[in-house]
Amino acid sequence: MDIKNFLPGDDEKINMLLKFTAEVDKMTSVIRHTSLIDMSRNENDAEHSWHIALMAILFKDYAPEGCDIGRAVKMCIVHDLIEIYAGDTFAYDAEANKGKEEREKIAADRLFGQLPVELGKELRDLWEEFDRMDTPDSRYAAAMDRLQPFLHNTLTEGHTWKEGHPSIEMVNKRIAPAIETIPQVKSWYDLNIERAVKEGWLKK
Amino acid sequence: MDIKNFLPGDDEKINMLLKFTAEVDKMTSVIRHTSLIDMSRNENDAEHSWHIALMAILFKDYAPEGCDIGRAVKMCIVHDLIEIYAGDTFAYDAEANKGKEEREKIAADRLFGQLPVELGKELRDLWEEFDRMDTPDSRYAAAMDRLQPFLHNTLTEGHTWKEGHPSIEMVNKRIAPAIETIPQVKSWYDLNIERAVKEGWLKK
Repeated sequence: MDIKNFLPGDDEKINMLLKFTAEVDKMTSVIRHTSLIDMSRNENDAEHSWHIALMAILFKDYAPEGCDIGRAVKMCIVHDLIEIYAGDTFAYDAEANKGKEEREKIAADRLFGQLPVELGKELRDLWEEFDRMDTPDSRYAAAMDRLQPFLHNTLTEGHTWKEGHPSIEMVNKRIAPAIETIPQVKSWYDLNIERAVKEGWLKK
Repeated sequence: MDIKNFLPGDDEKINMLLKFTAEVDKMTSVIRHTSLIDMSRNENDAEHSWHIALMAILFKDYAPEGCDIGRAVKMCIVHDLIEIYAGDTFAYDAEANKGKEEREKIAADRLFGQLPVELGKELRDLWEEFDRMDTPDSRYAAAMDRLQPFLHNTLTEGHTWKEGHPSIEMVNKRIAPAIETIPQVKSWYDLNIERAVKEGWLKK
């Protein structure tokens, strides 16, 4: 823990939670490959996590059966925390994705170890479930995490696509779980892929 | 709605939700008076909202009786949305606080009117309840909203206090509802007020 100048009170658990709160402020300097919609700069992990948590509130009528929206929102809030130590891994960079799992596991040990045991386990479980996408809550939360950057790309002249040069197949593969979870977005997705190709943002 | 280049699909409600998602990305350019803990710049509303939503997950064992944590987290996510149009009002600027209520009501009409009626009402109700602080959920969410900037001030040499020059009484009044809701933070609060005075960050 490298929070300088933290002056603790007399409740150990409260001190731990306040220090953790201060530590995770570092999410604001984990920069993603996605541009803000106003194209002024790239977004950071704190902004992205807030954005998809709000989406999880907005799209609730499209959530899969059995999805607990409140729990999915929590998943959105915590899903990228380990990037404070592991960094953001660009989805369309195969080289960077090598060793991602191991890197993130080490980061998770370091991060969640700063919390009271039970709470650390709860947050870690939420993160792991999110990554597995094998429950209604995690499929729904992960759908938000895939749709948000796609939306940004459609509104920022394919910002990320121009950087990473993914094939259409790679984009389709990335977004497929979201469309499977919320099929109502398919026509919007298809039209925007078509436009992206026409505009030269994505190459056939 | 001024989302340029939004290419809609064939589901009207999905289009509405996607456009709203794009519109609220403007939260990233509503700049607050609180500094990030690394003191590199001031935080924005998206970052702040994410940060207190995470705090609401972390501090759950200290929530008042009857508090629904999932609902309090949602409140944290949406509590500042209207500032996209109303702007952030500095808590320690009496002049700026004149007309705040009317300004925010107009902003709320404009913002929540962009959503399907029922959903717009749900988000507006969450925001209004948050502001009233008259339920366990809103008292808890509002406590996070008061403690987070206080924590930042203790770790950034009183950044906001040096800007707004509040009296200790003003700071006490601002934080009192949070301490009433979570009395376990009181010793940490008192010690940090004492240090702030000693360091000259707050004037007696």
